[in-house]
Amino acid sequence: MKNTQVTLDKRPDGKPKASDFAVVTSDVPTLNPGEALIENLYVSLDAGFRNWMDEGSGDNVLPAMPLGKPVMGLILGKIIESKNPAYNEGALIMARLAWEQFSILTADDWHVVLEDDGEHPLSYHLGVLGDTGMSAYFGLNDIGKPQPGETVLVSASGGAVGSIAGQIAKLKGARTIGFAGNDDKCRRLETELGYDVGVNYQDENVADRLAEVAPNGIDVYFDNVGGPLLEVVLDQINEGARIPFCGAVATYGDQAATPGPSNLFQIVSKWATLQGFMTHTKLDRYPEAREQLSAWLKSGDIRAIEHMYEGVENCGVAFADLFAGQNFGKTVVKV
Amino acid sequence: MKNTQVTLDKRPDGKPKASDFAVVTSDVPTLNPGEALIENLYVSLDAGFRNWMDEGSGDNVLPAMPLGKPVMGLILGKIIESKNPAYNEGALIMARLAWEQFSILTADDWHVVLEDDGEHPLSYHLGVLGDTGMSAYFGLNDIGKPQPGETVLVSASGGAVGSIAGQIAKLKGARTIGFAGNDDKCRRLETELGYDVGVNYQDENVADRLAEVAPNGIDVYFDNVGGPLLEVVLDQINEGARIPFCGAVATYGDQAATPGPSNLFQIVSKWATLQGFMTHTKLDRYPEAREQLSAWLKSGDIRAIEHMYEGVENCGVAFADLFAGQNFGKTVVKV
Repeated sequence: MKNTQVTLDKRPDGKPKASDFAVVTSDVPTLNPGEALIENLYVSLDAGFRNWMDEGSGDNVLPAMPLGKPVMGLILGKIIESKNPAYNEGALIMARLAWEQFSILTADDWHVVLEDDGEHPLSYHLGVLGDTGMSAYFGLNDIGKPQPGETVLVSASGGAVGSIAGQIAKLKGARTIGFAGNDDKCRRLETELGYDVGVNYQDENVADRLAEVAPNGIDVYFDNVGGPLLEVVLDQINEGARIPFCGAVATYGDQAATPGPSNLFQIVSKWATLQGFMTHTKLDRYPEAREQLSAWLKSGDIRAIEHMYEGVENCGVAFADLFAGQNFGKTVVKV
Repeated sequence: MKNTQVTLDKRPDGKPKASDFAVVTSDVPTLNPGEALIENLYVSLDAGFRNWMDEGSGDNVLPAMPLGKPVMGLILGKIIESKNPAYNEGALIMARLAWEQFSILTADDWHVVLEDDGEHPLSYHLGVLGDTGMSAYFGLNDIGKPQPGETVLVSASGGAVGSIAGQIAKLKGARTIGFAGNDDKCRRLETELGYDVGVNYQDENVADRLAEVAPNGIDVYFDNVGGPLLEVVLDQINEGARIPFCGAVATYGDQAATPGPSNLFQIVSKWATLQGFMTHTKLDRYPEAREQLSAWLKSGDIRAIEHMYEGVENCGVAFADLFAGQNFGKTVVKV
């Protein structure tokens, strides 16, 4: 058995390119006591992992990724061999493993055993029923708190988190506006995700367009990107606005520091809240959130859109596409 | 009777200067039906009023101040003549009147009747028992929520709001660090306001100095100024940090937009909260806050420091001093 792997070949300069990664083949590793062999089924592609690709980028969450090694990522896989009594062969797990066909799960590795009830596609556990769905759910419910009739704006609105956040906001009775990077995506926001309006932030005068489609101002801005769009939005927030701040993909891998919004004073004058959040601080509430999202999926109140690639060798391409705005929905690679 | 007034002579270019204001003398106005004549006793000087001194600066709170007219300000005064049955001669009021000895209170003017119990100096009702005390109280309690042992950092820490916020944080068991603009103020922070450390943000390498005096990071940053200091602090906040965002004096009257913090992503990665607030949204809780602050004043747990000027003609000087960092405590002009 051979193991196809995708390694970090070069440290990305700004946005990752497919050529920053290399596809290599190695032998499937043999197990030491305490370890299990995982057959990886799905790889979740998440922009946040870009943070650990720079030299010296390690932090208290994760170490920097080494060059020449398989790229670290969130994986859904199956235990196919175990030398650890706690790891049951045949069990499904999610773990922080690597872009490869087979991985070793050591005794110390963080992992979650997946109780699959067969009600949803397996890959949903990496998206709508996983961390990105949780981000949408907690960010919107705990921070955004949209009220019926309010206007909710979402950036990266067709992305893994945004696509769910927008739909939940709509369920809560809000008017929903989504930012996306091209007209096709804007159309899909409206036809597939129930957004009232999709706004193309690339082609248009965003400030004018926003004022036009949100004449009563923005009550909630679910922000997945940060950067210059945040400045535009801050000028149009209402008093008491809430800004769940979920990510800043606009500035990931930004070598030269990008100036922040020059109008941050709007946070004071509109007595608004800009609040970051990390789903790992809410693990105790995952079951509640997952149950609700599962129910909405079954009732058809929300839909999960996946941007699926086939073949582990395409992980690098898929990751680069994510930063090039080529994705719509949750990006997953089927190994 | 003559009325000494201080008018807006020129629209300030950036920070206000004393020469932007003119002292004039006029006749004391006569009353129309429904009006009262107010003898102004104290003028509160608040940086926020700078916002309405620019051409075209009017908003839904207040209109832009006209040139050549007495400058609008928060006043504590006494009704000395009334042609309105609702206005009792001899009553003390606070109202948004002007930098002058005598003002007219019309039937429609917002005002508060002051029930003075004689327990505190009258002028405290413009400071520690007024809006600035309320800002400190609500910002710290509702947003900052300092826990015993946490580190609370305050900017403009010797100012009207900061001087109270720092003392409340200390009462809550936090370690308190204050930013101030010169060594003398830093010393006063420590000797008069109970701060553990005063940090001079003008003379020193603030980032290094902060790391030195707050080796465990910042849990609460009570920010009264915004601007470049916020960027420095964001690099040193702890997970779950709270930033009550009270004002942005650093950028008031800033004609060229100052770039915001380039590291706003810290709000995400530290799941921190940056929250603006306006005391007028909490009017129903003023009695609770005022009672607590009054009790602390009487017990000596906090002290109110006033930066007092004598003579209404000094309002312009006092206002300019506020922006030149010449104040310590609440700036009040005794008319």
